Amino acid sequence: MQHYFLKQSLVVDQIVELPTKIKHHFFGVLRSQPKAKLELVDENHIVFQAIAIDPELGTVKIETQLDRQTDLPVEATIICGLAKQSKPELIVQKATELGVAEVIFIPMERSIVKWGSKSEKKIERLQEVAVSAAEQSHRNSVPNIRYLAKLTELADQNYDRALIAYEEAAKQGEKAQLVQNLEQLSSGESVSCVFGPEGGITDTEVNWLTDHGYQPVGLGPRILRTETAPMYFLSAVSVILELSQM
Amino acid sequence: MQHYFLKQSLVVDQIVELPTKIKHHFFGVLRSQPKAKLELVDENHIVFQAIAIDPELGTVKIETQLDRQTDLPVEATIICGLAKQSKPELIVQKATELGVAEVIFIPMERSIVKWGSKSEKKIERLQEVAVSAAEQSHRNSVPNIRYLAKLTELADQNYDRALIAYEEAAKQGEKAQLVQNLEQLSSGESVSCVFGPEGGITDTEVNWLTDHGYQPVGLGPRILRTETAPMYFLSAVSVILELSQM
Repeated sequence: MQHYFLKQSLVVDQIVELPTKIKHHFFGVLRSQPKAKLELVDENHIVFQAIAIDPELGTVKIETQLDRQTDLPVEATIICGLAKQSKPELIVQKATELGVAEVIFIPMERSIVKWGSKSEKKIERLQEVAVSAAEQSHRNSVPNIRYLAKLTELADQNYDRALIAYEEAAKQGEKAQLVQNLEQLSSGESVSCVFGPEGGITDTEVNWLTDHGYQPVGLGPRILRTETAPMYFLSAVSVILELSQM
Repeated sequence: MQHYFLKQSLVVDQIVELPTKIKHHFFGVLRSQPKAKLELVDENHIVFQAIAIDPELGTVKIETQLDRQTDLPVEATIICGLAKQSKPELIVQKATELGVAEVIFIPMERSIVKWGSKSEKKIERLQEVAVSAAEQSHRNSVPNIRYLAKLTELADQNYDRALIAYEEAAKQGEKAQLVQNLEQLSSGESVSCVFGPEGGITDTEVNWLTDHGYQPVGLGPRILRTETAPMYFLSAVSVILELSQM
C-alpha cells in the first residue's frame, strides 16, 4: 500500500485534499481509482489508513488510525564524512530504511570531495531521497538530513551516547563496546555515531571527538566501506533494541 | 595495504611470482616499487605479509604469517531472489564486506528479471565483484557466488539453521526468532537465510521452504528493500556472534 507523509494533523472521517506532489503521484502516476487504499502519516507521526474519493480533486477520506510504530525506539543519528559519488544518496536511502532519525554530513580531513556552496542543494536532494525511502519502508517519520561545515560544530549537539566507528577500537579488543553501549540505552534516548570518509577518520579528529564525549567502538573485524559502516551500526541498534530486549 | 587472494599455499621466506592479474594491478596500476608491502591470502585462508622484490618479474617475498581472522565464525549463506538492475552487484559487494560465505541467486515467483542462459556470465561477473570486495575488506576468503535455476534445488543444500526473511513473521510477534536462532549457533556451523525479490516471497514459496526445514524470521518492524534485508541479516550475525558472545 502507498504510504505518504503530510504536514498536518489528521482525524478519522476527515476528508483531505492531497498536496500537489502526492496527488500527482497517487492519482496521476499510479492512476489510483476511487476506493483505492493508502496510508497517510500526519505531523504527529501517527499512521492512518485512507481511501481515495475523487481523483480530479485529489481527495481522500481518513478511515482508521493504525497503531503501528516502525521508527527505532531510540533517536539514532549518523554523522558521516563527505564521501564521493553517489555514496551520500546510498547512505541516506539505506539509513532511512534502517530507522535513522537524522543524518549529518560533515567535510572531514580525509574527505576528497567538498560541497561548499553546493551543500544546500545537496541536502535538499538528499532530503528528497529520505522522503522517498521513508515512504517505501513505511516509516512513522522522515529522517532529517543536515550539513555541518566543520566537525567542531558537533560541540553544539547533545546525545545520550555518542560513538565513533573506529577500526582501531576493534583491534584493541574492545569488541563488545558497541553492544554494551546500545544495551544501556532506554527508549526515547538518543545515540549518535561518527563515520569517517573513504580514507578514514584521522587521529586529530578522533582526539577532538573523544575530548567531547565520543567513545570509539568497533564494528566487527572486517574493514567496512564508508557507506556500509552506518548500515551495520543501524542494524545493530535494531537487533539489540528491537529484537533482543523483549 | 593491498590484499590479494592466491590459489596456492604459502610459507614464510618463499619467493612468489604474482599471477598476471594481480601483478598488473599491484605493479602496473598502483606502480608499487621494490620493498612495498602487501598482504597475500593463500588457498588455506591464511593471511601473510609480503614485500615486493621485482616489478618486472612480478615477484614478492613472503615475510610473516599474520594471525588474523576476519571471516564470520559461522558459514553464512544468503539465498536471494533475482532482483532488478545492479542490485545483485550491490548485494554481493555488501554481503562480502559483511562476511558472507556464499551467495545463491534463484529466480523466484515474483522475480521480474530472468537470467536464463545469461546466468553463467552474470555469476562470473558477480564472482569478480566478490573478489574485489573481499580484497578491499581484507577477508580471509572469497565468498562463493552461485545460481540455482529453481527454488526446489535448495532441497539438496544442508544448513544447521535455515531461515526465511519474512515480513509476516515480524507482524505475528515473532520478533526474537532471528536472535534466538543466531544465539544457538556454534562456531563453524552453517546458517542460511532466504530473501524474496522486489515483490516479496509468495505463500507457496514460504510453504515449500517451511516444509523443508526453513523457519520464517522477522528483521525488525520496517519494510526493507530486497538488497537491504541481507545486509541487516549479516550485520545481525556479526553483532550476535562476533560482538555479543565474548
